[in-house]
Amino acid sequence: MTPTTDQDRVLIFDTTLRDGEQSPGATMTHEEKLEIAAALDEMGVDIIEAGFPIASEGDFNAVSEIAKNSRNSVICGLSRANFKDIDRNWEAIRHAARPRIHTFIGTSPLHRAIPNLTQDEMADRIHETVTHARNLCDDVQWSPMDATRTEHDYLCRVVEIAIRAGATTINIPDTVGYTAPRESADLIRMLIEKVPGADEVVFSTHCHNDLGMATANSLAAVEAGARQIECTINGLGERAGNTALEEVVMALRVRNDIMPFATNVDTTRIMKLSRRVATVSGFPVQYNKAIVGKNAFLHESGIHQDGVLKNVETFEIMKPADIGLNEDNIVLGKHSGRAALKSKLAALGIDLGQNQLNDVFVRFKDLADRKKEVYEDDLWTLVRDAEDETPDRLELKDLKVICGTGGQSAEMVMLVDGKETRAETSGDGPVDACFNAVKEIFPHQAKLELYQVHAVTQGTDAQATVSVRLNEDGRIVTGQSADTDTVVASVKAYLHALNRLLVRRGKVGEGADTREISYKDVS
Amino acid sequence: MTPTTDQDRVLIFDTTLRDGEQSPGATMTHEEKLEIAAALDEMGVDIIEAGFPIASEGDFNAVSEIAKNSRNSVICGLSRANFKDIDRNWEAIRHAARPRIHTFIGTSPLHRAIPNLTQDEMADRIHETVTHARNLCDDVQWSPMDATRTEHDYLCRVVEIAIRAGATTINIPDTVGYTAPRESADLIRMLIEKVPGADEVVFSTHCHNDLGMATANSLAAVEAGARQIECTINGLGERAGNTALEEVVMALRVRNDIMPFATNVDTTRIMKLSRRVATVSGFPVQYNKAIVGKNAFLHESGIHQDGVLKNVETFEIMKPADIGLNEDNIVLGKHSGRAALKSKLAALGIDLGQNQLNDVFVRFKDLADRKKEVYEDDLWTLVRDAEDETPDRLELKDLKVICGTGGQSAEMVMLVDGKETRAETSGDGPVDACFNAVKEIFPHQAKLELYQVHAVTQGTDAQATVSVRLNEDGRIVTGQSADTDTVVASVKAYLHALNRLLVRRGKVGEGADTREISYKDVS
Repeated sequence: MTPTTDQDRVLIFDTTLRDGEQSPGATMTHEEKLEIAAALDEMGVDIIEAGFPIASEGDFNAVSEIAKNSRNSVICGLSRANFKDIDRNWEAIRHAARPRIHTFIGTSPLHRAIPNLTQDEMADRIHETVTHARNLCDDVQWSPMDATRTEHDYLCRVVEIAIRAGATTINIPDTVGYTAPRESADLIRMLIEKVPGADEVVFSTHCHNDLGMATANSLAAVEAGARQIECTINGLGERAGNTALEEVVMALRVRNDIMPFATNVDTTRIMKLSRRVATVSGFPVQYNKAIVGKNAFLHESGIHQDGVLKNVETFEIMKPADIGLNEDNIVLGKHSGRAALKSKLAALGIDLGQNQLNDVFVRFKDLADRKKEVYEDDLWTLVRDAEDETPDRLELKDLKVICGTGGQSAEMVMLVDGKETRAETSGDGPVDACFNAVKEIFPHQAKLELYQVHAVTQGTDAQATVSVRLNEDGRIVTGQSADTDTVVASVKAYLHALNRLLVRRGKVGEGADTREISYKDVS
Repeated sequence: MTPTTDQDRVLIFDTTLRDGEQSPGATMTHEEKLEIAAALDEMGVDIIEAGFPIASEGDFNAVSEIAKNSRNSVICGLSRANFKDIDRNWEAIRHAARPRIHTFIGTSPLHRAIPNLTQDEMADRIHETVTHARNLCDDVQWSPMDATRTEHDYLCRVVEIAIRAGATTINIPDTVGYTAPRESADLIRMLIEKVPGADEVVFSTHCHNDLGMATANSLAAVEAGARQIECTINGLGERAGNTALEEVVMALRVRNDIMPFATNVDTTRIMKLSRRVATVSGFPVQYNKAIVGKNAFLHESGIHQDGVLKNVETFEIMKPADIGLNEDNIVLGKHSGRAALKSKLAALGIDLGQNQLNDVFVRFKDLADRKKEVYEDDLWTLVRDAEDETPDRLELKDLKVICGTGGQSAEMVMLVDGKETRAETSGDGPVDACFNAVKEIFPHQAKLELYQVHAVTQGTDAQATVSVRLNEDGRIVTGQSADTDTVVASVKAYLHALNRLLVRRGKVGEGADTREISYKDVS
């Protein structure tokens, strides 16, 4: 997929950490953001929008650290159309090898009414802020929010102003997910034809999926001349989400005959990153999601084959391996040894140090004792647990839960900084009883914002993965754990979240994630 | 949305019960199929593809009963290109007020190779089978499977043959989800321009979502002249699924300015049906799914508002009420009476007889005692349980489960045809222990095909809804139940499935669902 000329290369701009993360309920922790950014960088994403530095101290710190750790990707931060936002943004991203300032303002009549600016006043504001950004950084992206509902004349005028002021990328957002492919293409084509200087900048498309057309709208924009697509892993994002990275990248690859454009993305890393984003955001991917849904490649399973299927291409336009999905999913059992585990992990692209491998092996043996077959998905979970380095100040020692038609109660023994403490509680359901016991042993004010159970694999002996999100004065942490006993997994996930909260409490300079500004201003 | 002329009316052809139901793991029971068909009919869907009558006795019976119960919708059955399939199809659908025979054959080079037919031989086959279908039924739809990968010349030739032989609808399937909007439009336009007789039939589009473009491809086909869209609720279907009904219908409504086409669908019924299909298929809808995802309208929640948002249209192109979603989601508490419940149910469009209302009220009070707030979603679950009329030959009387770090065991008392039986068992996890107890008390050979837990609402005191799918010699049944105690919900769902299986076992003439033919031949 190496591009031959600049002309046929489409830049992939990932905004999972900014537009994706701002979807209600998808807040990620600091560590999770760093991990996702590193994976995006490794995958070959051209530009990573890492956050909105002025939104909170937490956002600032995350963007700043992602910038410092960046390797190949351009690191971009978002800022509204004022000097304070832009300065704060620059402060966060300047450490990147290749920083980009992104600044925006809503240009449609509905959005102009919010700051109550006339067309001329807004034009001046755009000129000043883009000039200011360009004085700080050579790489400046400007977006007219709600572009698809902005008058064409005015849109041409402000795009020209932004280009003259030094913007190097012009991003055209379909903020409300309103456009359709032909209209999306026409808009880009119109801008490129009419705006003086348009040939000196990269046009970008930013679509939302409210009507289910984000992918088609993005690709139509590319056919009309856009050379950057803004997207997120799994299409994460507010409402119906953003354009899904995996869909545009794979569509460009599969239909290169009619859309001869290349990206720099290593598609074999898609599946791993999709799973990780689903887990940390707490937004599961539906079975029939394009490319990354668990049924996306399942056209043959469960269906009686009549033996006449001679050519796999009859029903397959992509290979599972193209996105890093191994067809051979049954992996290991209780008799598998360390070498088998290591080789399977390597096949999955998971490279662990000796200590981590030992840790995963111990967890694997423990799981294999309780579960007949250990699947790929189970391995991902084990590795994730082993990679976590949060110190266990709170640890579950013993748990006995009684539940059923006669009521629910829990007897719990926990180690709190090594000291054994016991509680007996009741509740509405077994998990509620357990969480009451945790609160009795370790009183805290954190609010439970999310409690979610997924079965990692099928069957009643499957591992249950539980995600718990807590919010303490704006500090948001997520804990995860897996066990064949759902109740045990729930308690461990709760304690994992609390342990992370204790780390956060102790950190000087890392503030709460409470955003003091409104995301209503953000495309 | 009443159409003014035939020209601007697009027919909605729903294939949730055929192409949707054939996706691996989404098998529905006989009763569920009848219920979904009735809801589609009520919603104003023009054509319901009810199944594939020759596939199994179960399919035949479902299509036949749906045909008998049909009111306004055309009822369509699928058949391959042979007389036996078509005759069997006609036998099932002939009882409908408005029956339609759908017959198809794969016309692309890859698909022609399977039955090993030359172009001429296949052309003859198409002529014979469509003629035969038309002799039985005035309404005949013909599909060249994998049309988007068929040579244009040959496609024109076979479409012309089908029209001459009496087909009244020509459906163009993008079987592998391969096409893009412009290409989809070009294909329909080419056929309408080149094929003699094209103006006398309705062209239809059938898209799959493998590259995330099914909705845009379907709408592009309509702009080019197609007047029927094949789709499914929630985009259910093999691999990445089919075009989602809710997306094309809402896109045509929201963007009527650029796509001036109307449908007959009552959009306010979308949300209820989406939830029901998610439940019976066991395919949950992801939070950021367009239109029906739980975040699709959540653009304001969890986000600090700065008070400047004066106009709801700034970020909202559809109203939640348009799809039957009530914004006022907190409903009732433990002090709410029967009148409050009745009026809330009426607001949700749920109309119950006196007995069912009494039953729901008892369940509601029981739930409200255990759960602080009862949400809309809880009500849907209560109503569904009350509407189920499966006799409870197996009933849970008492359950005590011990779980936690020391192991899992269950003590269960069940009523089997009224007789108390007891078991004590252990297992891998609390649910496994319980299911072992059920198997000990009531031995059976049914295989557990699916075990799935959803939280109906958030929080640890949320109701858990559990779905269990069992397969006994090809008889497939699904059981569901909800409880604030997941373990209790799991056992009740298992017993619900077993009770349904006992009904199925006793039915004369209702055979297994095992399909003896391959779905590989189906678009």
